[in-house]
Amino acid sequence: SMNPDLASERQTASFSVEKLTALLDGGTEQMRIRRAVVEAIESDPVFSRENQYFQTQNERYEAAVRKAVHLQKKMHEMGWTENGPEYKYIYRALSGDVAFLLHRVFMRSISVLGSDKQIAKWIPLATQHKLIGSYAQTELGHGTYLQGLETTAVFDTATQEFILNTPKISAMKWWPGDMGRSATHTVVFAQLYVHGKCYGIHPFIVQIRSLQDHSLCPGITAGDIGPKMNFEHIDNGYLLLKNVRIPRENMLSKFCEVRPDGTYVRQGSQKINYFTMTTVRISLISDEVLTPLMKACTIAIRYSVVRRQSKLKPGEQEAKILDYQTQQEKLLPQLAAAYAFHFINDYLQELFNRGYREIQRKNFDMLPELHALSSGFKAVITQHCTAGVEICLRACGGHGYSLLSGLPSLYTKILASCIYEGENTILLLQTARFLIKCFMAASAGQPVPPSVTYLAAVKHGKCPAKNKLDFLSPDIYTEAYQHVAVRLTSSTAAKLQDLIESGVKKHDAWNQCTVQLVQAAKAHCHYIAVKNFAETVEKLETKAGIQKIMKHLCDLFALHGIFSNTGAFLHDGYTSAAQMDMVTASYLDLLAVIRKDAVPLVDAFDFTDKSLNSALGSYDGQVYQRLYEWAQKSPTNQMSPAYERYLKPLLHNTLSKL
Amino acid sequence: SMNPDLASERQTASFSVEKLTALLDGGTEQMRIRRAVVEAIESDPVFSRENQYFQTQNERYEAAVRKAVHLQKKMHEMGWTENGPEYKYIYRALSGDVAFLLHRVFMRSISVLGSDKQIAKWIPLATQHKLIGSYAQTELGHGTYLQGLETTAVFDTATQEFILNTPKISAMKWWPGDMGRSATHTVVFAQLYVHGKCYGIHPFIVQIRSLQDHSLCPGITAGDIGPKMNFEHIDNGYLLLKNVRIPRENMLSKFCEVRPDGTYVRQGSQKINYFTMTTVRISLISDEVLTPLMKACTIAIRYSVVRRQSKLKPGEQEAKILDYQTQQEKLLPQLAAAYAFHFINDYLQELFNRGYREIQRKNFDMLPELHALSSGFKAVITQHCTAGVEICLRACGGHGYSLLSGLPSLYTKILASCIYEGENTILLLQTARFLIKCFMAASAGQPVPPSVTYLAAVKHGKCPAKNKLDFLSPDIYTEAYQHVAVRLTSSTAAKLQDLIESGVKKHDAWNQCTVQLVQAAKAHCHYIAVKNFAETVEKLETKAGIQKIMKHLCDLFALHGIFSNTGAFLHDGYTSAAQMDMVTASYLDLLAVIRKDAVPLVDAFDFTDKSLNSALGSYDGQVYQRLYEWAQKSPTNQMSPAYERYLKPLLHNTLSKL
Repeated sequence: SMNPDLASERQTASFSVEKLTALLDGGTEQMRIRRAVVEAIESDPVFSRENQYFQTQNERYEAAVRKAVHLQKKMHEMGWTENGPEYKYIYRALSGDVAFLLHRVFMRSISVLGSDKQIAKWIPLATQHKLIGSYAQTELGHGTYLQGLETTAVFDTATQEFILNTPKISAMKWWPGDMGRSATHTVVFAQLYVHGKCYGIHPFIVQIRSLQDHSLCPGITAGDIGPKMNFEHIDNGYLLLKNVRIPRENMLSKFCEVRPDGTYVRQGSQKINYFTMTTVRISLISDEVLTPLMKACTIAIRYSVVRRQSKLKPGEQEAKILDYQTQQEKLLPQLAAAYAFHFINDYLQELFNRGYREIQRKNFDMLPELHALSSGFKAVITQHCTAGVEICLRACGGHGYSLLSGLPSLYTKILASCIYEGENTILLLQTARFLIKCFMAASAGQPVPPSVTYLAAVKHGKCPAKNKLDFLSPDIYTEAYQHVAVRLTSSTAAKLQDLIESGVKKHDAWNQCTVQLVQAAKAHCHYIAVKNFAETVEKLETKAGIQKIMKHLCDLFALHGIFSNTGAFLHDGYTSAAQMDMVTASYLDLLAVIRKDAVPLVDAFDFTDKSLNSALGSYDGQVYQRLYEWAQKSPTNQMSPAYERYLKPLLHNTLSKL
Repeated sequence: SMNPDLASERQTASFSVEKLTALLDGGTEQMRIRRAVVEAIESDPVFSRENQYFQTQNERYEAAVRKAVHLQKKMHEMGWTENGPEYKYIYRALSGDVAFLLHRVFMRSISVLGSDKQIAKWIPLATQHKLIGSYAQTELGHGTYLQGLETTAVFDTATQEFILNTPKISAMKWWPGDMGRSATHTVVFAQLYVHGKCYGIHPFIVQIRSLQDHSLCPGITAGDIGPKMNFEHIDNGYLLLKNVRIPRENMLSKFCEVRPDGTYVRQGSQKINYFTMTTVRISLISDEVLTPLMKACTIAIRYSVVRRQSKLKPGEQEAKILDYQTQQEKLLPQLAAAYAFHFINDYLQELFNRGYREIQRKNFDMLPELHALSSGFKAVITQHCTAGVEICLRACGGHGYSLLSGLPSLYTKILASCIYEGENTILLLQTARFLIKCFMAASAGQPVPPSVTYLAAVKHGKCPAKNKLDFLSPDIYTEAYQHVAVRLTSSTAAKLQDLIESGVKKHDAWNQCTVQLVQAAKAHCHYIAVKNFAETVEKLETKAGIQKIMKHLCDLFALHGIFSNTGAFLHDGYTSAAQMDMVTASYLDLLAVIRKDAVPLVDAFDFTDKSLNSALGSYDGQVYQRLYEWAQKSPTNQMSPAYERYLKPLLHNTLSKL
């Protein structure tokens, strides 16, 4: 039976939930396929995540391997293929709780970096799981700065082998997934030496465990790096190499080759490889970042309409906590952000598809822009969504803190996205470097890529808004965002210039501007996200109330950004204090408007109870019953030796006296 | 051997680390006692936390009980008493990783709420651990709003007993520590009914488990609520009561009593009890909030001078990451906040001691102010420190994400402080209510408590700073903070007034102002924290460089607050854009200055390696060696059944072919 407090929220939806779900899925056919995959996965008990919150790291790992192996069988049964339309929904349906993800990276790296001969040899083996691959790049002492990797691969002309070594402890490979316990092979990145000369970092296929009995190969020390904040199901590993010899053919040689005599040869353009790296940053946004935020919003918003606490009006029933303005102010901007980033993700995907087509035609012009966008948006979206999930968790009070709410795991997992695939601050500085370069070019009248042409058009006007309703005009707020992005970029460019002109060395000057450069990069991405949301809304069909509610969310996303960062807009007087008060008024009004549709808006994300795996977020809203039933199954309700060992002797001291 | 990159940081300290430690401890004698306690605890293997990151929830609970029982013995051995000077250091030395904390709350509630006769009966039993107590207030459906609790206690005149019941699932007690598995008794808060009339919430002592065999008493259902984000060592429990009968004498009756005939009698003033609740909020700041932030700063800052990544200057060695401005901007404001909050904690402790003396003289005048300050600062400090710990974690990149860094556990634990002892938003609104009331009173020329007299003196001036050095003047920035606090309070009071005058009902008007009321409460606390830091620095001895470095930290704390929230200062033109640029310049300059003393400043917190329990934060800075050695001990490096069960059949399919 559905909790009546939740049921009543659904009766008043201003739009068709089913239509909005289809819009998010990219069409009704996509929606149908996704639901079929979810149904097939969730009805299979092997994929159950029900006991997940009670399991140890060892149990999680074992379950993830079991699922990965079972998935092969399942795909065969269902007729799903890696190139089929179902594939992209599988990982989402599993909530990522499966092993051998790095096996896929192993395969991708061979496909991209290997010669045709290498691809022909290794890809079929990997596809059929005749080996388990990993990807060993990061070292204890090196993550971001790849050139600093210390593992060595020395070519021995006599035996036609590379000899791989970990020269010191900081050179030990550290973090690679699937490597701690599962992998038999890995791609090792190492400094290549031939005849005593270093040629920089290159990739080598190295076998690390026996295919016979899984024992470590000679010269290999490897294991699991131990407990982490999340990712208990993944065996992130370490690897130490001592005079490990591999044949010359194991250096991935699409772009660089060492000939038998030791001659080093470069061939072809690596730019396509570079492009692959940038697309990975975009591809993770949907599954690893947006889905967790959407789940967190679903859980927190459903809970906030069944949780009643304190009274809004004296003498009345206790109020739903979502009726408090402060609760709306916590949750609804996260909901708006989830939609905003869903649409910017569509935009980026489309842009990258276009880029890919251009690159295949040997046109690399789009690369710098794509790199800047993928870096900036990876950083901005992971940061924003991580903070959003944390807000959802805290907004659920004590029950949010229980693992059974599902929120702690969502948070501890999404947090990692701020660190992997490029640490966020480093990435924002990549974007900033592009912005500064383009700003200088634009100022000098040179052409710049489409996403930054606005930098050329520096205007010194004022925001034209006259009353609070004007701030519901996308032109008004988009222009304000644009103005801030231009101001931050131009003022930082000026500071940089001034420092250099005053005699500060270029790299020192850059370092002294980095805090402000990060601000500029964020402002650029925020502007593009707002603009894209507004343009998307413009194009939506007006039927079924979809456009109207999306317009509200777009307004909220934009005004929340201004309200949370008023200084950026007030600084040079573009927005006046009186206008800022209008922003605040419109923003607070919007909260009350969107609150009415809050539950339908999260229902549209279409998560099943199994995929939420949350006692607070279920579709029927029976929160307290579910918490109680679930808690009773916890291993902490088994007998503990603590009683016999410690409590009994303590209490028995003087039992008779009570 | 000490990592030379860390050693070099210590050689250039501008002040005496030992003197600063003594200052933080409140004197050299206090420092000596603290160190002696730490030494005694850490040299005892029973208290070891070395395996903590590898343990299951069940193992953590058992260890916490073992430690709690052993602690009794230890205290006896060492001659430590609950009233002795060592006592306050014990919990800190144990890092809170011990059971029976709620047993102490059980005792305190009896001492405060019980009659002399009840105290005489129960306190000796509890002191000698002849029973284990808990404190059952929160229910599944009720936390913040105590009046809404649903558990009932009906007086039965015939048997002279109270009959306790859990009328529905939302009335189940949920969360009480020590109750899930350990407690034999608890204080249950329930709605008192006599002759069918409800007298509201009252406390009752209820036995829940047999002292003979620890089985649940008749009518009791109880157990553990299962996994949480942290606090694995605590058995937070649930409790369901079904016609549980307790003698009339078990209602705690210092303030209210039910006579044998059912007559309900109120006696004495409960105000002292109310005062106790507010002091708890202050007392948790030091151990539960400041210590974790100080530990996180120690770990992250030490790591940031031994971690080298990428190059600041081309051709040079890779740079210490703390030399990057962006890394300084992440960590150093957290360090400054740790000091700022240490000093405000001293201030609050002193204020509360004074309040206690007044209250004992039956003068309750200070109560509203103390309530407002304890609520506001509890919220502001827990929020700020939680965010600070998260920043420290993220600033350590991948290694910060390993449990072995110590940072994830610090974060997941401190996060709870934002929720318990009053949810932060609710608390800030309590402070805001006080501010509005005082502002109205002050505007009407009535007297107001000392901490809010500034609200009466609304000035419409401008910030007088003329260059960036002016912003290193405490008068300049303290006045700016004061101006913002007054502006936010007065403008929200005006909005509230306007709404009510326009016909909006009072409670609706209040709700529509809550987002802004929260801002006003934060601004008030921030102002007091800045003012107090500046006044503390003023009074420090100028010797040994202490005052100078504390002045830098005070400046940084103040300017970071302005830099992060520029809109509040720019809004009405009190600070101009040109002045804001000066703030930014001074702020960034300060980062470079304080960076030089960063390691000595965390060394002064004087945490031992055992208390940090971190592979990244050790005193000698041997990060990579420690991570490697520690990881090898992880249970995830034992043989997993996953190989035999899943991997072997998979790989053996076609072994011969490779």
